[in-house]
Amino acid sequence: MRNLTLMTDLYELTMMNGYSALGCAEKTAVFDLFFRQQGQISYAVAAGLQQAIEYINELRFDDDDIEYLREAAGFGDEFLDSLRTFRFTGDIFAVPEGTLVFPNEPILVVRAPLSQAQLIEPALLNIINHQTLIATKASRVKKSAGKAVVSEFGLRRAQGPDAGIYGARASIIGGCGGTSNVLAGKMFDIPIKGTMAHSWIMSFPSELEAFRKFAEIYPDNTLLLVDTYDTLRSGVPNAIKVFDELKSRGKKPVGIRLDSGDLAYLSKKARKMLDEAGHRDAIIFASCDLDEYVISSLNEQGAAIDAYGVGTRLITSENMPSLGGVFKLAELTENGVRVPKIKISDTHEKITNPGFKTLYRVYDGDGKAFADLIALADEKFDPDAPLTLTHPTMRWKSTTLDRYAMRRLLVPVFEGGRQVYFTPTLSESAEYAEKEKETFWDEYTRNVNPEIYKVDLSDGLYELKTRLIAEHTAERTGGRL
Amino acid sequence: MRNLTLMTDLYELTMMNGYSALGCAEKTAVFDLFFRQQGQISYAVAAGLQQAIEYINELRFDDDDIEYLREAAGFGDEFLDSLRTFRFTGDIFAVPEGTLVFPNEPILVVRAPLSQAQLIEPALLNIINHQTLIATKASRVKKSAGKAVVSEFGLRRAQGPDAGIYGARASIIGGCGGTSNVLAGKMFDIPIKGTMAHSWIMSFPSELEAFRKFAEIYPDNTLLLVDTYDTLRSGVPNAIKVFDELKSRGKKPVGIRLDSGDLAYLSKKARKMLDEAGHRDAIIFASCDLDEYVISSLNEQGAAIDAYGVGTRLITSENMPSLGGVFKLAELTENGVRVPKIKISDTHEKITNPGFKTLYRVYDGDGKAFADLIALADEKFDPDAPLTLTHPTMRWKSTTLDRYAMRRLLVPVFEGGRQVYFTPTLSESAEYAEKEKETFWDEYTRNVNPEIYKVDLSDGLYELKTRLIAEHTAERTGGRL
Repeated sequence: MRNLTLMTDLYELTMMNGYSALGCAEKTAVFDLFFRQQGQISYAVAAGLQQAIEYINELRFDDDDIEYLREAAGFGDEFLDSLRTFRFTGDIFAVPEGTLVFPNEPILVVRAPLSQAQLIEPALLNIINHQTLIATKASRVKKSAGKAVVSEFGLRRAQGPDAGIYGARASIIGGCGGTSNVLAGKMFDIPIKGTMAHSWIMSFPSELEAFRKFAEIYPDNTLLLVDTYDTLRSGVPNAIKVFDELKSRGKKPVGIRLDSGDLAYLSKKARKMLDEAGHRDAIIFASCDLDEYVISSLNEQGAAIDAYGVGTRLITSENMPSLGGVFKLAELTENGVRVPKIKISDTHEKITNPGFKTLYRVYDGDGKAFADLIALADEKFDPDAPLTLTHPTMRWKSTTLDRYAMRRLLVPVFEGGRQVYFTPTLSESAEYAEKEKETFWDEYTRNVNPEIYKVDLSDGLYELKTRLIAEHTAERTGGRL
Repeated sequence: MRNLTLMTDLYELTMMNGYSALGCAEKTAVFDLFFRQQGQISYAVAAGLQQAIEYINELRFDDDDIEYLREAAGFGDEFLDSLRTFRFTGDIFAVPEGTLVFPNEPILVVRAPLSQAQLIEPALLNIINHQTLIATKASRVKKSAGKAVVSEFGLRRAQGPDAGIYGARASIIGGCGGTSNVLAGKMFDIPIKGTMAHSWIMSFPSELEAFRKFAEIYPDNTLLLVDTYDTLRSGVPNAIKVFDELKSRGKKPVGIRLDSGDLAYLSKKARKMLDEAGHRDAIIFASCDLDEYVISSLNEQGAAIDAYGVGTRLITSENMPSLGGVFKLAELTENGVRVPKIKISDTHEKITNPGFKTLYRVYDGDGKAFADLIALADEKFDPDAPLTLTHPTMRWKSTTLDRYAMRRLLVPVFEGGRQVYFTPTLSESAEYAEKEKETFWDEYTRNVNPEIYKVDLSDGLYELKTRLIAEHTAERTGGRL
C-alpha cells in the first residue's frame, strides 16, 4: 500500500500545529464516524475497514513530507520534528465489513490523542465512505437480481484506478459474484469474469467467423456477444450455428450476451430461439446501463436473463455518488476528566450524540434484528431483565422486549496503536454480509420505500444528551431556559 | 506510480490470447477514444494524459501476474510467455491536457498492435474519463464563480484515494485555485488551502476562546469558522472581537468562513457587520453543498462571497458522476492493407467514424474557435484556399471561410513505444486551459443551454463513412440497397 500519510486536509495539520503550540495535542479525544439519512438508502453495508487498517499501519511522515510541509504550510521546527516520530497510538473500534449499518449510528470510533484523530479524519472518511457506498449499491442491485449472478463491470467508468479496484472489492462484499477487473481479482482473490468485445467481432470479416474462431479457441467458454450488427437477425442465429457445431463436437455452449437494445424484448425472443434450437442450457447474460431499478423492471416484464454485468451505475453509485459520512468529536479528556462533547444544530436530527459510546444490535425472540441501540460504552445492561427500547427523540415511543439477544457491533480494531483485529478474507466478509441480511426482515432492506429500522438511544445516552443540550441553551440564553 | 498492468478487463486478455492463437495479435489497429453528448455538458476539459503516459511507461507483467493469469484464467504457456516481454510498442496521439474538447471527436488515438491496444483500453478510459470529468466539472463551477477563487475541498467524499488525489489535480486544470488535499498539493505542486474545523471550536470551552487561540497561533492567517453555534449572534460578533484585537496588534485579519445555513442571507448580513466594524478587507469564504448551479443562484441573490470551497459535488461530479468515453476500432491492417472499420448502429449518431484520423480546430478571422474538423490523417488542406465546413450528417448545412487558421489538436505522445511528448507542469496545463476558454465565445461554454459547437467531418472522411455504411447495408440486404 502507498503511504497516504499526507492524504489529509490542510486544516487538520493547521489544527495539529495549533494543538501542539497550546500543549493539548495529546489530550484524549473520541470521534464517531457515522452517516445521516440520505437519498433513497435505508441501510448501508459497511466496507473499507481492511484498507483503513492498512492506512493506519502505514502512517509515518518521511523527510520529504516534512520538508514539503515546511515550505508549503510554513510550520515551525518544533511541530515538524514531532511529526518525524508520529505513529498512531490510539484505539479504534469498528463494525466488521459486511455489517448492515444504519443512519446516525457510530460505525467506527476513534479514541486517540486529539492530533492523531484529526490527522486521520479525511482518509478514514474517504476510504469508508467510498467502499460502503459501493457495497451498498451492489447490495441493492443484487437484491433486484435475486438468484441471477451479478458481475461488476465498471472499471472504465470508475473515478480513477482506486475507484475501479476498491469499488470491485466493495461490490463483492455487497453481493456481486465477480468482477471484470483482473487486478482487483488478483489483489482480493475475486472470481474474474468476461465475455468478448465488439472489437473482436469487428476484427473479423464476418460475425459468424468471429464466433467460430472464438469457439475454436474457447470451446468450454463460449459466451457470444450477439448485438454487434443485429441481435435477432444476425447475432442469435449465428450463435446458434456455432452452438450446433460445438455440440456436434461434444462441447456445451455457455450462452449469449446482450449489450444493447430492449433487453426485455430481446432476451425473451432470444430465449425462444435458443430453446427451439435445442440450447435450453445456454444462458442469457445482459449488460447495458443497468442498476437495481432497471433490473426490477426487467423482472416485471418477464425478461429471460440469467446473469448480469453491471458497470457505470454500480461503480459510481450513479444516482447517489457519495456517502456523506462524517467524523464528529464526542468526548475530550480535560485535566484528567472525560468531558462529553456535543455539536448543537437548529435541526434536531443533526445534534450529535455525545460521549464514548458503543453500538448493540438487538434481536427478537425469533432471532431477527429488531433495533439497534446506541449506548454509553460503560452502561450496563442486565441480560436477564426485559429490555425497553425508546425512540431517539420521541421518547413516548417505546417497546419492551422480554425475549431478546444483544450483540455488540463495534469490535476492537486497534488498541494503543496496535492492530488487534485480523480482518477476514473478502469472501468471508461477503458471506457474513449475506448472513447479516438474512437476519433482517425484507421490509427493511427492500429497494423502494423501505420500512425504517429503529436506531434507539439508551437511557444513559439520552439523559446525557438532554443535559448537554439544556446546558448549552442555558449558556446562550444566560440561564433562562 | 503503481504497476497497473493487470488493471484491465478479463475479456481484453481473453481476446489477446485468442488473437495470439490465431496469429493476428500483431496486426496494426487504430482505436479512437471519444465521448458522446451526455447530460448537460456541451464541452469537456481534457485531463489525465500525464497519468495515462505514466501507466503506459510502466506496462509490464511480472512473474506474479503471469502465475495469477495461469491459475485464474487458465491461459496456456505460449501466450503467457509472450506476456513476459510485453511492452507497448505503438503510437499514441492525444490532445494536451486543458484542451477544450467536444462530443464525438477523437481526443486520443492509439495505433498499435491489436493485442496491445486491447490491453490498455480499460485503464486509458478509466484515467481519461475520470480526470476529464472532474476538470470539466471544475471548469463549470469556476465559470459560475467568476473572479472568486474556488478551492477543491472534496477529499473525504471522493470515491477512494485516487479520486481524491487525481480529482484534485484535474480540478486545477479545470480552474480551481487550490486544494485542501495535502498529498495532491505535494505531488502536483498545487497551492494547499484550509481554514479551521468545527472540532477546533468544540475543543475549547467557548467559541471566543477558540478564535483567540487560533489568532494567537496564526496572526497572519486568521480565517475563522463562524457557524458552529450561531453564525450571526455568536460567530460573527466573536470574529469581529478577535479581528479588533488583531488589528490593535498591527495584524490584518483574513476573514470568516460560512459552512452552513442560508449562504446568501448570512453572507450579506455578515458583510454588513464586518464592514460596520471596520473590517472591509476581511473576506467571506463559503462552503457547504456547492456546485455551479448553487453558486449562480448565490450570485443572483447578491451574496457577498469572495471565495468558495467546493467539496462533494465537485469531486464526484455529483449530477453526472461518469464520463462515458469509449474506445472504438477505426482501422485494422490486414495482409498489409489498411482496412477502415466502422461500427454500425440503428442510431445514426452512434455510428463510429472509420479510418486513421486527425482533429483540427478551425479559428475564424478574429482568432475565435469556429468549428472542429475531424479528417483522415493523410487528407491535405490548402491553407491558402477557402475552407468549407460541412455538418457531419446534414451535409446541406455548410459554411465557407475565407480567412481562417487551422490547428492540429492531436499531438504525438508515443512513437513506436517511445514517449515523444513531455507533459507541461500542472500550472502550465491550467494556464493553457484558461487560454483555451478565451478562444471560445461564452455562448459555447455557458453552463445552461449552451450553443452547440460545430464538430464537422471532412469530405474525405464523410465519403469513406458513407461508402462503408452502404457496403454494410448491401451485405445485410444481399445487395439490395
